[in-house]
Amino acid sequence: MKIGIIGTGLIGGSIALKLKEKNTATHIVGIDQNDDNLNKALKLKIIDEKADFETGIRSSELLIIAIPVDAAKKILPQILDLINGNQTVMDVGSTKSGIVEAIRNHPNRKRFVAFHPMWGTENSGPEAATRDSFTGKAGVICNQQESDKDALEKVEKVIENLEMHPIYMDADAHDVHTAYISHISHITSYALANTVLEKEREEETIFQLASSGFSSTVRLAKSHPEMWVPIFRQNKENVLDVLNEHISQLRKFKSALEKENFDYLEELIVNANKIRGILDK
Amino acid sequence: MKIGIIGTGLIGGSIALKLKEKNTATHIVGIDQNDDNLNKALKLKIIDEKADFETGIRSSELLIIAIPVDAAKKILPQILDLINGNQTVMDVGSTKSGIVEAIRNHPNRKRFVAFHPMWGTENSGPEAATRDSFTGKAGVICNQQESDKDALEKVEKVIENLEMHPIYMDADAHDVHTAYISHISHITSYALANTVLEKEREEETIFQLASSGFSSTVRLAKSHPEMWVPIFRQNKENVLDVLNEHISQLRKFKSALEKENFDYLEELIVNANKIRGILDK
Repeated sequence: MKIGIIGTGLIGGSIALKLKEKNTATHIVGIDQNDDNLNKALKLKIIDEKADFETGIRSSELLIIAIPVDAAKKILPQILDLINGNQTVMDVGSTKSGIVEAIRNHPNRKRFVAFHPMWGTENSGPEAATRDSFTGKAGVICNQQESDKDALEKVEKVIENLEMHPIYMDADAHDVHTAYISHISHITSYALANTVLEKEREEETIFQLASSGFSSTVRLAKSHPEMWVPIFRQNKENVLDVLNEHISQLRKFKSALEKENFDYLEELIVNANKIRGILDK
Repeated sequence: MKIGIIGTGLIGGSIALKLKEKNTATHIVGIDQNDDNLNKALKLKIIDEKADFETGIRSSELLIIAIPVDAAKKILPQILDLINGNQTVMDVGSTKSGIVEAIRNHPNRKRFVAFHPMWGTENSGPEAATRDSFTGKAGVICNQQESDKDALEKVEKVIENLEMHPIYMDADAHDVHTAYISHISHITSYALANTVLEKEREEETIFQLASSGFSSTVRLAKSHPEMWVPIFRQNKENVLDVLNEHISQLRKFKSALEKENFDYLEELIVNANKIRGILDK
């Protein structure tokens, strides 16, 4: 099968690597405004050929959009304009309401399947792509009733080949959940990095003392703005809700410390410990 | 050498395992109020024998206090009362000003070396102990001028055997730095867990969607209150300073989102990205 990957970065590249491994007959067409990325992806054998936008779209049976969510939302209608009824389009974006809304009335709407693999790293570009990244993770399909059955089945086959398990969800519900499970973690991490960078001017000390705990909490702060500003823009309302709650939770710790109410502090920690039972299920 | 470990949990147990590996002549005496822990540590070959407090203290050439920081501060003067001038005592606590202050005028002060290994996990107990945990990490010695030269050398040898690199620091400076590098990460993580647990009532959804990013940011929220309440109590002022700064950093993200000032949001993220250059040195 000929698969066109629009955006040959971390996610697009990782999907390409895995699909080629699963089926050696898979032929990957790379489509990317960034010619540097395309050449790197060719060299890394992530893609088999590069193509310009229109040629690439028209020649691929399956198209996978793997670019920042605002660019994806803008490009999807143009892609749907070009394809015929045998082609399928999927995305991999971290926000879903906006993209689904953007093509609600497009005549080829049913050829699109809204997808979000629950995996990523703080790195980017084709060099960061890795096989087996997705194994065991959830792959979310949104508003499946709005897609043709054969298009849906094609995407479910991709999920199977990525060794993910599919979860079905309404796009609006998806955006609420990811605000909690993913987007707020990034804001927390960015803000933590800024806190340390603001106050802890002795960079050498950060470097020398940074323990695995700190590195783990601050890891996501390395994530690029090109990807994350559009996500926060598209999921603004949900992210603000969660951020307000998070600030109010931090204020509880502040208040417990200020009042030296260590019983309350312990209560807050014991409650937080419950996350262990949920994550380690 | 006979080494007495007071507190045979994660840190004490991990140190014991490594020191025994490095020198098979090392004999570890376990001292712990929790007899369950002692028996587990015996079974796991972390310790070679168990002893009651006074016998254990009197019979060990080196004593390593590895219990929560408030208990350590309370027990250290009692230990110094019991030892002679050939014995050395070290601790492993995450706060240093309090314990150093507690024994400032003790006649055996110079036999104590204030130590903090920059390693830990969210787990606890002897079962969680692991060899090689400390390799490559920083081992901080505080107020070294207040210790006898031979005591200091003994602790430096321990640091070498743990394969850590020593850093020397004033106790007060240590507590400021760890507030930034370690303590605030825990509060952030606890508060993030509470945010998600408060709002995201669908536990199954958390479990299914939780990506590696979320798990990484929230990992420290599994850490036990028995260890962390005393740390926050002892480092209250510094932790409050950092927490206030962290909340004000989060408010910048909130304001950028509310005002839809995405240039400012990008600026905040670009600044946070600088942590990559420091951590990946």
